[in-house]
Amino acid sequence: MTNKNFIEDKAVNELRVLSAEMITTANSGHPGIALGSAPIFYSLYSNILAVDAQDPKNIFRDRFVLSAGHGSSILYATLFAMGFDLTNDDLKNFRRVNSKTPGHPEVNITDGVDDSTGPLGQGIANAVGMAIAEKNMEATFNKRDLKLFDSKIYCLSGDGCLMEGISYEALSLAGTLNLNNFVLIYDYNKITIEGNLDIANLEDVALRFKAINFDVITVKNGNSTKEITTAITKAKKSKKPSIVIVPTVIGFGSDLEGTEKVHGLPLSAEQIENLKNRLDVSKPNFDLSSDVKKHFEEKSNNAKQRLFKRNVELKYKEKYPKEYKKLKQLFDFNYENVIQKIKKLDNNSFGATRDLNHKIMQEVAKFVPTFIGGSADVATSTKAYIESNSYFSKNDYFSRYIHYGIREHSMAGISNGIALFGGFLPYQSCFLSFMDYLKPAIRMSALMNLRVFSIFSHDSITAGQDGPTHQPIEQLPSLRLIPNTIVSRPYNASEILATYIWLMENKKPVSMLVSKDKYEYFESKVDDAINGGYTIFENKSADITLIGTGSDVDRCFKIMKILNSNGIECRIVSIPSISIFEEKTTKYKNNVLKDLPKVFVEASNEQTWYRFAGRADLVLGLNNFGASGSPAEVEKFMKFDANSLAKKILKWHSQKNKQM
Amino acid sequence: MTNKNFIEDKAVNELRVLSAEMITTANSGHPGIALGSAPIFYSLYSNILAVDAQDPKNIFRDRFVLSAGHGSSILYATLFAMGFDLTNDDLKNFRRVNSKTPGHPEVNITDGVDDSTGPLGQGIANAVGMAIAEKNMEATFNKRDLKLFDSKIYCLSGDGCLMEGISYEALSLAGTLNLNNFVLIYDYNKITIEGNLDIANLEDVALRFKAINFDVITVKNGNSTKEITTAITKAKKSKKPSIVIVPTVIGFGSDLEGTEKVHGLPLSAEQIENLKNRLDVSKPNFDLSSDVKKHFEEKSNNAKQRLFKRNVELKYKEKYPKEYKKLKQLFDFNYENVIQKIKKLDNNSFGATRDLNHKIMQEVAKFVPTFIGGSADVATSTKAYIESNSYFSKNDYFSRYIHYGIREHSMAGISNGIALFGGFLPYQSCFLSFMDYLKPAIRMSALMNLRVFSIFSHDSITAGQDGPTHQPIEQLPSLRLIPNTIVSRPYNASEILATYIWLMENKKPVSMLVSKDKYEYFESKVDDAINGGYTIFENKSADITLIGTGSDVDRCFKIMKILNSNGIECRIVSIPSISIFEEKTTKYKNNVLKDLPKVFVEASNEQTWYRFAGRADLVLGLNNFGASGSPAEVEKFMKFDANSLAKKILKWHSQKNKQM
Repeated sequence: MTNKNFIEDKAVNELRVLSAEMITTANSGHPGIALGSAPIFYSLYSNILAVDAQDPKNIFRDRFVLSAGHGSSILYATLFAMGFDLTNDDLKNFRRVNSKTPGHPEVNITDGVDDSTGPLGQGIANAVGMAIAEKNMEATFNKRDLKLFDSKIYCLSGDGCLMEGISYEALSLAGTLNLNNFVLIYDYNKITIEGNLDIANLEDVALRFKAINFDVITVKNGNSTKEITTAITKAKKSKKPSIVIVPTVIGFGSDLEGTEKVHGLPLSAEQIENLKNRLDVSKPNFDLSSDVKKHFEEKSNNAKQRLFKRNVELKYKEKYPKEYKKLKQLFDFNYENVIQKIKKLDNNSFGATRDLNHKIMQEVAKFVPTFIGGSADVATSTKAYIESNSYFSKNDYFSRYIHYGIREHSMAGISNGIALFGGFLPYQSCFLSFMDYLKPAIRMSALMNLRVFSIFSHDSITAGQDGPTHQPIEQLPSLRLIPNTIVSRPYNASEILATYIWLMENKKPVSMLVSKDKYEYFESKVDDAINGGYTIFENKSADITLIGTGSDVDRCFKIMKILNSNGIECRIVSIPSISIFEEKTTKYKNNVLKDLPKVFVEASNEQTWYRFAGRADLVLGLNNFGASGSPAEVEKFMKFDANSLAKKILKWHSQKNKQM
Repeated sequence: MTNKNFIEDKAVNELRVLSAEMITTANSGHPGIALGSAPIFYSLYSNILAVDAQDPKNIFRDRFVLSAGHGSSILYATLFAMGFDLTNDDLKNFRRVNSKTPGHPEVNITDGVDDSTGPLGQGIANAVGMAIAEKNMEATFNKRDLKLFDSKIYCLSGDGCLMEGISYEALSLAGTLNLNNFVLIYDYNKITIEGNLDIANLEDVALRFKAINFDVITVKNGNSTKEITTAITKAKKSKKPSIVIVPTVIGFGSDLEGTEKVHGLPLSAEQIENLKNRLDVSKPNFDLSSDVKKHFEEKSNNAKQRLFKRNVELKYKEKYPKEYKKLKQLFDFNYENVIQKIKKLDNNSFGATRDLNHKIMQEVAKFVPTFIGGSADVATSTKAYIESNSYFSKNDYFSRYIHYGIREHSMAGISNGIALFGGFLPYQSCFLSFMDYLKPAIRMSALMNLRVFSIFSHDSITAGQDGPTHQPIEQLPSLRLIPNTIVSRPYNASEILATYIWLMENKKPVSMLVSKDKYEYFESKVDDAINGGYTIFENKSADITLIGTGSDVDRCFKIMKILNSNGIECRIVSIPSISIFEEKTTKYKNNVLKDLPKVFVEASNEQTWYRFAGRADLVLGLNNFGASGSPAEVEKFMKFDANSLAKKILKWHSQKNKQM
């Protein structure tokens, strides 16, 4: 027993020294959390997690999300010790470009990292998303005699993540859904960057979690791996989601232990020596003592055995071959196949784009069985939902319709978690003007290459009487600024279908904007729309080209009528997705944009279009907030109705002609 | 007693009918909350609030924030009844352009509206900000014998606001700060747009609020104005912040009462008749019965008397003339005076812009005594704080240094509330890449014309080893897209000073980006910088103009050296604020930009600059996420170091020459 404790403590302390060395060598990182939470990492990986270092993406594994992403060094040290694909050199290259050990954990870079984290609070929402996904897989595939899915989602959070609004939202939903596969481990060190926690937060965390239907389990000694293991084991068996509160000492063992100063300041060489002395560690220097190495080999094998014991894949395959085949298809989904089916839907039905999308969504749901999602309490307005008689709840984990409540930010974080789990295509919806609430999580979708589909309705000042708070001006161009993101503002059914194709073709977040405006739209073909930009109305004798997106293409048609009656001939180009269009050949693009004077029409901040506009062209956009009134009233008030716009174009055109 | 009850119930029901009529006439609005919460509005205005309809901006008044802004109709109906400046016609014009009764409450449009609300959750954070401001005024001006400030902040919230993360953040801070001048009234109708509340939220609200140090007071009968009045009275006397839970019936009295359908659907003419019959109302038609009118006249007078009784202004003026003068100066602050003082600080000290700003902030704090604010737990990194030995806490409401905790979104909402209260200049800070968390609240600052100062540090990929989550790419151009906002990215001390001048000159939010990069900067003059864009390095024989912002101006100087050695002469333009620059005369702008080939250098998404770039010019920006590594490593990895950029410019330049 003493022996066992000895080696465990030694292992924990070597992890501590390893991570402190990484930080000092990088001259950057966060020793505070690493030294404080090392016993948690040890306990989790050694005694709890069912994972296989050689098969880090095994779909039946437990997931671990380090929401406090600045603790990356201790995560890497632990993964290294547990035999994941990390070498001593990788640890030495901590926080260096192109290393396997980036500053914050990145899911596509390091084996064993289940989530990219860093912006506080996001990881908690991601973990809740994974728990939702897992529950749905359980409900879909598990049989009375064979529990195929039975994994847990563990998430480590500090005070920072818990103070963030997104975490509150996600945790409240986790409680409502009674996700008992979700275990939150709270690294409770009572210190924030600016000082003691009580300067900024005095809440009763246990009570807070009881209020949202969590089991609250409190560890007494945060340095006892035995106590931590017992507590987490209890949590994983709970019938409710649970929080394990682990009191830790920030920067444990270092000269600055227990103070905010150790949060983000690398130890000096001397302080590393002091740390090693204090923790009685002689080895590390980016390695482990041979007995600790051996100890972790055993632990790694145990972790693998835990996964192996749980894994009934072969039995399941034998007994339920049909279901098994379905499962395999989900996790290695053939999106190419779906694209072909989507193309066949090109039937040019009419209606507001939010309604057209609603119809198309029902079809896509047939092709992609795990198309899962919901809205932040505005599904009746966005119309972005898959019709269902049921909804995902603590009584029904089989349904794929999620009532997110009025929780936009965590909705987007949860979608990321669902996508990270694998096997799902998550969607989410709300009004475009509230896209801002989701933005931090959408950025993470893009950074992680996650196929997450956002549908934003009420995409224009014609959203109606709700007024400027509900009328987007800058949101569409803001979305377009996010790297690795596809933004689409379709005008008609073919363009919506094209958007779904982009979603299937790419591993990226796609944001689609839809409108409640009704107009008689001009037909086009998916094969044209799919180029991101195309000529929707050609006119060989055109004097100018009108260019628009979404419902503004309809405005272009209305403007054209007025211009025609003033003797100006037009052609019209629709550009539902700039980023897709920009990937096309210069020849194609020039053929679409043509060498004619251009007028860009979009009821949004006009920044986007200067990229395409020459000095002689005209960009018609909006750079002020909207107003409260009927769509027609607001259009006039903002001088963005077809008449006002046509007037501006006529003026511009006549001045052009004068100059010539 | 019966009589009293009779007229009170009659008054409540006439308010109900009034607001239902407004919605039906507008054919848009939210009858659910209006009909359900009418008794709360009646009780608050009739029996609680100390306000004067003829002096709606009185600084000693109670504040009321309708966080559930979609309840605007019942607010307008009540203000109308209480004698605020609203006519029957104004009610008829509900949700029409240019009316005094816009779709959601707007603070600059309607007398008696203390806050613009609509995006859920924001109002709660604003109200907490007002409560902080009020407490600070109490601590600053109240004397043992004269309580000059003694007002309460009431905030009405539905389930929506409470589910939003921002509200959780702000309320947790309100509890930590023990803001007992804050009373949250919870319109608990158990219905959300998508259905019963329990589909998306099962939390124990009372427990949740106990966990964050709130007094919880529950009303039994949500239709009893007496019970509601008693409960709110108790809350306002509490020694803690408090929540009054009022169980209401959504759409009370209407055919659809108690269902989600009545949330946002106007009643039909027939349903209005049914409502009137059910509530036994004969009069309204945009008016009140004469006895109800008389009743409200009395109530309005009572409200005024409550304010009058509290108001010890005259006594205070007599006894404490010096303090009184100071107070008057605060609420009618002479920013012009400050501008002159700021101009004199132009001394060109050296250092990273975050350090320069730190120094300048200390000076500005001397000129603006109520410069108040803090950071979301990163003040030690942003350096944006006013040095102080104390901080704002439940034990010290006098200090103006606020530890916001890791709560970016509510920090920005709270700043808005502080600005709304009057007499303060709020500032806030965090890393630029987390600007996204604040964005929804910054939009509201802009919409409300609030002078709120945001300081975003770590404004480039050179933020360091924290990696792509901490490196802004799209945030700077995103900020520039918000209407009515000033964005500044200063390069040196003079440009920082210019930014403070813009802050003083305008009633708008100002976002200033600062860097931790250290460089030997080129001097300039505030008088030049104040133009938003200016020539920082002139060269009559220049072949090209290099244009940059912030630390990219330093890059331009480095690039210039390389280009010079390749025989290309340069001049350099710094544009700290595009929006300020664009306001200048065409002549001035042309003189700055010159008719030379231009190269734009900014380590951000490049969209911004196409507005200024001709087809022959070169825009050098970043459209991908950053990476984890040292600043120099990341610069090279992203090909944004001076050498790589100079190479691109040389290539571009030689191609240009070939074409000529």
